Amino acid sequence: MRKISLKNIPYLEELHEVNKVFNLKKITKNTRTLAEREVHHNKIVGSLEEAVHRVGLQNGMTISFHHHFRSGDFIINMVIDKLAEMGFRDLVLAASSLTDCHAPLIKHIESGVIRRIETSGLRGRLAEAVSDGLMDVPVVFRSHGGRAGAIEQGDLPIDVAFLGAPSCDPYGNANGYIRDRDEGIMCGSMGYAKSDATHADKVIVITNHIVHYPNTPFAIPESDVDYIVKVDEIGDPAGIMTGATRFTTNPKELLIAELASKVIFASGRFQDGFSFQTGTGGASLAVTRFLRDKMIEKSIRASFALGGITGSIVELHEQGLIKKILDVQSFDLRAAQSLRDNRFHQQISAGYYASPYSEGTAVNQLDVVVLSALEVDTGFNVNVLTGSDGIIRGAIGGHPDTSFGSSVSIIVVPLTRGRIPCVVKNVNTVVTPGKTVDIIVTDHGIAVNPLRKVLRQRMIDNGLPVFTIEELQKKAEQLVGIPKPIEYTDKVVGVVTYRDGSVIDLIYQVKQ
Amino acid sequence: MRKISLKNIPYLEELHEVNKVFNLKKITKNTRTLAEREVHHNKIVGSLEEAVHRVGLQNGMTISFHHHFRSGDFIINMVIDKLAEMGFRDLVLAASSLTDCHAPLIKHIESGVIRRIETSGLRGRLAEAVSDGLMDVPVVFRSHGGRAGAIEQGDLPIDVAFLGAPSCDPYGNANGYIRDRDEGIMCGSMGYAKSDATHADKVIVITNHIVHYPNTPFAIPESDVDYIVKVDEIGDPAGIMTGATRFTTNPKELLIAELASKVIFASGRFQDGFSFQTGTGGASLAVTRFLRDKMIEKSIRASFALGGITGSIVELHEQGLIKKILDVQSFDLRAAQSLRDNRFHQQISAGYYASPYSEGTAVNQLDVVVLSALEVDTGFNVNVLTGSDGIIRGAIGGHPDTSFGSSVSIIVVPLTRGRIPCVVKNVNTVVTPGKTVDIIVTDHGIAVNPLRKVLRQRMIDNGLPVFTIEELQKKAEQLVGIPKPIEYTDKVVGVVTYRDGSVIDLIYQVKQ
Repeated sequence: MRKISLKNIPYLEELHEVNKVFNLKKITKNTRTLAEREVHHNKIVGSLEEAVHRVGLQNGMTISFHHHFRSGDFIINMVIDKLAEMGFRDLVLAASSLTDCHAPLIKHIESGVIRRIETSGLRGRLAEAVSDGLMDVPVVFRSHGGRAGAIEQGDLPIDVAFLGAPSCDPYGNANGYIRDRDEGIMCGSMGYAKSDATHADKVIVITNHIVHYPNTPFAIPESDVDYIVKVDEIGDPAGIMTGATRFTTNPKELLIAELASKVIFASGRFQDGFSFQTGTGGASLAVTRFLRDKMIEKSIRASFALGGITGSIVELHEQGLIKKILDVQSFDLRAAQSLRDNRFHQQISAGYYASPYSEGTAVNQLDVVVLSALEVDTGFNVNVLTGSDGIIRGAIGGHPDTSFGSSVSIIVVPLTRGRIPCVVKNVNTVVTPGKTVDIIVTDHGIAVNPLRKVLRQRMIDNGLPVFTIEELQKKAEQLVGIPKPIEYTDKVVGVVTYRDGSVIDLIYQVKQ
Repeated sequence: MRKISLKNIPYLEELHEVNKVFNLKKITKNTRTLAEREVHHNKIVGSLEEAVHRVGLQNGMTISFHHHFRSGDFIINMVIDKLAEMGFRDLVLAASSLTDCHAPLIKHIESGVIRRIETSGLRGRLAEAVSDGLMDVPVVFRSHGGRAGAIEQGDLPIDVAFLGAPSCDPYGNANGYIRDRDEGIMCGSMGYAKSDATHADKVIVITNHIVHYPNTPFAIPESDVDYIVKVDEIGDPAGIMTGATRFTTNPKELLIAELASKVIFASGRFQDGFSFQTGTGGASLAVTRFLRDKMIEKSIRASFALGGITGSIVELHEQGLIKKILDVQSFDLRAAQSLRDNRFHQQISAGYYASPYSEGTAVNQLDVVVLSALEVDTGFNVNVLTGSDGIIRGAIGGHPDTSFGSSVSIIVVPLTRGRIPCVVKNVNTVVTPGKTVDIIVTDHGIAVNPLRKVLRQRMIDNGLPVFTIEELQKKAEQLVGIPKPIEYTDKVVGVVTYRDGSVIDLIYQVKQ
């Protein structure tokens, strides 16, 4: 090859890269076959410990995890146990959510391995311990959209993402299912993990199932993955998802669901091409069933269904009643199988789902969302995070995101649960601001946000049992009385953020 | 809602975002329906001019384009005409490639609207004018992988990407086809555009076809798109792609193709699960046909086919002979239709295809690649960029990327074209370094790179007509003699970069 001189070439200095001469000596052509490379020249490392060394994890760094394995997750405990053993300290644990299976983290918080936590939710013993003042630094709660936005904007910079995946090829193409056969643990969509993989500085995939290249289609492309660790088990299939979500037989839930579906029919949004999200929970699922009957009757087809997807949504899609599904999280096996098999069932990232920073965010295109609640108050504010005892026992999820983005947001909630009122004067914790909440549907009637006058009139015109929110609150009070106020200490244990990262409420330690 | 104070919360100051209090007044909930939003509240702007104003384009900035519309492209000329009319100057035009339909750019270079060009290739009158010294600053040529890598690494920062798309919804989900019906202009994969959309500072989609939200599956997600411009025509369907690529009847091409397929069979790489890329061109396409017959005979199935995809690859896929297709560019309508309809035909980005900066890059997983050439030399260096007269008339494409990444790279080239030798002592322009080129297949026999001794022995053992590259060069010389050397001026008109951005060769102005 000729000798090249870069002297006297005009403007060469302004080109970023084009300022060095090709060095033939540096080239070592690949000569291995794919079969050889898959074994000898890939991103798989011998152990989790080795992967941690290679990514250069340091004390104080932020590590992230997804919650697609729900209460069946083995990844978080496995990784933090290992990091503790390796002597790491002061880590920031940024999980998309945490559940009751993560109680073993308590010891790692006590010993200083984990210094602070960011999550959408907390449940079980870990939640109780946090509520009881376990941590020096309060837990930061973010919605799914808020977290995705914070990651995109650099407000929640992730140093290392540890992402469990039911299938991964030797170069990192990872997915929540294997499309060409049924083997392995399936979680369906890996929507939350997608955002982490895109933006984390380093990404380690942990899988129980190495498949041949190329593992297409993929949730996470190999280009986002640095190292792969093969382990025997990544989770408990029974905890990851139920086989099929069953239809509720609870009469109160059915009553609320039927009323909620009548609200949808009366809302002016129930027309051909409408879009909706219902989610899980007995009443929400039942809404889907009532919707279906009316869609068939009126020859109405939905343009898309969004969100956490269940088999009941899939059923409507396969019956031709929903054109497209946008799936950030698959709640049951039926949904996961549909994601694998149905071409218009699309896996989307948390950012695509609910990022606050794009006009085109999917939640903004919702005509109707049906959401559940722990409490609502007379300001239409919703709490999905703390129980009536002030203890953390829930998750923000996509609640504020969908409530903001949807044309009509409907909260389904029983007026009371046992001796506990669910429509109150002031919720313990404001998660979704009342200004973005349109209609409260209870088993004792509905209340429409006074800001939505047309909507309220439509409900009345359709003969629905419309009350003021104060009337519903008083009815609850008549039924079960006023609970004794919770006593708190001065210690802040949780910071609840709104979609844009601002603080919308604080959670205090409950006085024992 | 309660008043919140952020005083006295430990560690709050270290949280990036969590330092401001939620402001209820700032919230304006969406109340519009999807149908209303699609019309009134979207990313569609009234004109190209408006989009250009909104993205804040400035003189001297870098604008990018894709070449999926090939010689049918209307976008580049349309946009540059408009920018010229608006008075812009000194722009850097970074196209993934340029073709013979872009001759109108000459006047915009002469008038100073375009100051420099980055591209994979140049053809036609524009290429001739550049070779003749049109530009003050040399054109920078990059391979598809080199360009993707430069974009990823920030060495080719894109200010505004103007991306033509055959379908786009009102929020920017864009694709090269419409999956639910056959209307509109189809280009299939938008692989090169995907890399630009991900990394450009601002993205404008130009489409002739606004479809309903959500346009899933998408090549480009709405999250990457800032503005959408609707125009009547984005390209000439006849130039974008042929209906179906036809099998060659040229006897010389068939001879070379048959020999190349024998080389593959003898290479030790032709085994179940092998991977390959063949691309376009008479001989390459014919190789696919010969492969098919042998695959059926030997019950061999390929794991994947890569690259620019043609109907002949689709045929093998649909016959079950190729498990998966990774498609960065669809060369004919058959390929585009398959991308739409076949679930294991996957659209991939230029970076996924060939980025030099990931072990898992698809080109690295190739067992065999078959590539064409304008010239090869006795150092096995390949020229695909300049003709025997020194004039630019080609494109680097994925040549150096696949040649480097594949276990065996095979160059198919006639020994001579008319009176022009194609195996020479020194190629006019080194595009792919000989160290990464394994076997040259001509209509007068093959030559194996001396670095690949085992491969050479296999060819001999299988009775293939093996010569030294010097013997082939001499044979060409005997047939057509030695052409008169090209005379150049001192002016550099093109800088040829290798995958990592280093300069591998320079192209000089041809003396008239």
